[in-house]
Amino acid sequence: MSKPLRIGVAGLGVVGASLVRLLQRQAEALASRTGRAIVTTAVSARDRSRDRGLDLSGIGFFDDPRALATAESIDVFVELIGGADGPAYDSVKAALHSGKPVVTANKALIARHGLELARLAEAKGLAFAFESSVAGGVPIVKTLREGLAGNSIRRIFGILNGTCNYILSKMETDGLSFAECLKEAQRLGYAEADPTFDIGGFDTAHKLAILTSLAFGAAMDAEAIHVEGIETITQDDLSAADELGYRIKLLGVAERTAHGIERRVHPTMVAKSTAIAQVMGVLNAVTIDADAVGELTLVGPGAGGDATASAVAADIVDIARGAAIQPFGRPTQTLEEIERIPMRHHEGGYYVRLMVVDKPGAMAAIATRMGERKISLESIMQKGGSAMARRRRTDPPPGAGEPDVVRVVLITHATSEQAIREALDLALADGVVTQKPQVIRIERE
Amino acid sequence: MSKPLRIGVAGLGVVGASLVRLLQRQAEALASRTGRAIVTTAVSARDRSRDRGLDLSGIGFFDDPRALATAESIDVFVELIGGADGPAYDSVKAALHSGKPVVTANKALIARHGLELARLAEAKGLAFAFESSVAGGVPIVKTLREGLAGNSIRRIFGILNGTCNYILSKMETDGLSFAECLKEAQRLGYAEADPTFDIGGFDTAHKLAILTSLAFGAAMDAEAIHVEGIETITQDDLSAADELGYRIKLLGVAERTAHGIERRVHPTMVAKSTAIAQVMGVLNAVTIDADAVGELTLVGPGAGGDATASAVAADIVDIARGAAIQPFGRPTQTLEEIERIPMRHHEGGYYVRLMVVDKPGAMAAIATRMGERKISLESIMQKGGSAMARRRRTDPPPGAGEPDVVRVVLITHATSEQAIREALDLALADGVVTQKPQVIRIERE
Repeated sequence: MSKPLRIGVAGLGVVGASLVRLLQRQAEALASRTGRAIVTTAVSARDRSRDRGLDLSGIGFFDDPRALATAESIDVFVELIGGADGPAYDSVKAALHSGKPVVTANKALIARHGLELARLAEAKGLAFAFESSVAGGVPIVKTLREGLAGNSIRRIFGILNGTCNYILSKMETDGLSFAECLKEAQRLGYAEADPTFDIGGFDTAHKLAILTSLAFGAAMDAEAIHVEGIETITQDDLSAADELGYRIKLLGVAERTAHGIERRVHPTMVAKSTAIAQVMGVLNAVTIDADAVGELTLVGPGAGGDATASAVAADIVDIARGAAIQPFGRPTQTLEEIERIPMRHHEGGYYVRLMVVDKPGAMAAIATRMGERKISLESIMQKGGSAMARRRRTDPPPGAGEPDVVRVVLITHATSEQAIREALDLALADGVVTQKPQVIRIERE
Repeated sequence: MSKPLRIGVAGLGVVGASLVRLLQRQAEALASRTGRAIVTTAVSARDRSRDRGLDLSGIGFFDDPRALATAESIDVFVELIGGADGPAYDSVKAALHSGKPVVTANKALIARHGLELARLAEAKGLAFAFESSVAGGVPIVKTLREGLAGNSIRRIFGILNGTCNYILSKMETDGLSFAECLKEAQRLGYAEADPTFDIGGFDTAHKLAILTSLAFGAAMDAEAIHVEGIETITQDDLSAADELGYRIKLLGVAERTAHGIERRVHPTMVAKSTAIAQVMGVLNAVTIDADAVGELTLVGPGAGGDATASAVAADIVDIARGAAIQPFGRPTQTLEEIERIPMRHHEGGYYVRLMVVDKPGAMAAIATRMGERKISLESIMQKGGSAMARRRRTDPPPGAGEPDVVRVVLITHATSEQAIREALDLALADGVVTQKPQVIRIERE
């Protein structure tokens, strides 16, 4: 048996504590698997005295992760501090500079500095591993980097944010509003006090940026992703989706199209029969559509201390086994800058929820605008007669001069986003539609 | 760039031809990923002249795979011949003896000779890789061997045979009999002329044996698996399952219990809301339940030339990258012989379909037998009044003295198989049940 692999863990939050426990609990099995003991020899955290339920006896403590990163007492630096910059970035860089392989769960760090750090790691011949940065315990990085190495990928899409999926699932199953479900998510610790990063889709965009690099060999560029959040989704949308055989999920999608590689995060209609539609609550899921394998879906816990620690441990085991794979599964220098595809080029089906003026000819006017743009409709659903009749007691009363409106839901066949936007703008200008329509893209499997 | 990795492919059936094409099509990407060209330099097949739509110019041809296995012109031997013994076994062994790493898609070979070959590979420091032997394009071997290396696994279960899943899906969606769906599967090439190996559960058992070794460090032992096929599943079972919120799937299950590691292949009731229940048609799926990650599910194509070639290519890429992981993710010598757990020790819920004599006290007698064995019932469903009324026109008429019977479906809470078998034997002996009951185990997620 070789000499022990000494691990330094920076950050003893939920994931860090879970990792230290996992490495202790599985010590024997890991040593057997890798031929060497894997031992946590040093940690760093802000508060040395806090009780984390950990046995840290015999383990060195550093107040500064940068000092831990370059310590003689460790062979591998594990960064679980979080944040794209500051101590996380500084310490990872310091570790690589001092010749230590790095494992991190920090998606923000990878999304912002991943390329620079990967280049540095490669130049030094060191591992720089981040399985846990996307979809928690789901081994999606390894699957893309190794398992599908012989494939050309057409599309990758997934539920990458448990907070959003919890809220959308809860809205659907309990019939509650977005605001109520967000509050419940906050109460359960699934959402932050400031939830913008999650519900606005930005967390999903970070993860999608990483997946896009792995899947398409694209240079990391989270800024080039079109992002919409789930704040605008209403019970009306969920019940219409349900009737039409769909569920609404916040997806991150990267897809090779005639225009290039489209990257987008937005609420999406997915057919109920698809694997991704079944993924409820805080679970994550990723589907890969590739030329050789066809369609492959991975579903599992996207967060949580133990699940994330499982992925971190897998990266450590790879290092202990001497695996020497480039961080993105190909030389970092070959990752290519790709252009942002304007969303108007997107092609696909659309769900459109309109408030239509309840008068003769209104629907004909809308249909004409759709027809002019060569948009064909798969289904039209008008629900509950006029809005007057349909209006719930809790709704505010209509204004005096406000026309009667009916809610109409359209599902289109594949068309371009430009066509649908233009047709709807014209319908709005025609005065037959009373407010900005709700538009949700449909993702087909 | 290092010198090319020269691949010898034995067997040019559907998978072999797909692999040769994949390596040609992806040549540039694979060279970029691994830092060396991956080139098919020689093949072997029974019929040299057959047109496979392949460009074999410049590629050596061997009539005998054993000669290919030791040829100077190859660095890696890929065995796609099939069969547990004969040329497949001989050539793999010869390749390892001559110092060449081996990739194989041959589950029968692994199930029978996997340990011996893995030991040989390890002794020589060679890769012996078989990702494609289980669940086709789904990277389940890599996930168990590497991605979940830090986990202790409680249970692994999956849909591992596309033929059975196609037949069960078709029976459910089209309302056809087992025999009709089998015939359709044969027509489409999803089932062999002699379908016993698939529908009897034996193919699933081979794959489960491999998964059990990877997940639990158990020595390979396909013979120790309890196997039941899907031949006895009727439309009655499917419709009762549907009403009760279940689907029927042929699962392979390996689970750590108080008695040891239970291994079984049988038709199983799974709740419709579970990920595994959504897997229809020829797809495969595997769910792993482990201490750190929780529950992880992989779904994808379990067969087909391109999907299987995708997995073979991943193994080749690992070899090109110099990965040196033991075939089972731990030293083969540490794999432990485990005892077969008699099925009477199995604990779980049961679906029981009974034909009960339609007379006062019959149900009470059954309930008493259940109560004596401490079996509690989750639900009881009696359908369609007496069997006389329920009987379809196509059913044979009842015999002159045959009593009226009603079909009753019971769902039990968790109990032991011993208890349920004893209770049902007694009910049969009591004369209140007219034929051998249908018993299907329920698998909870």
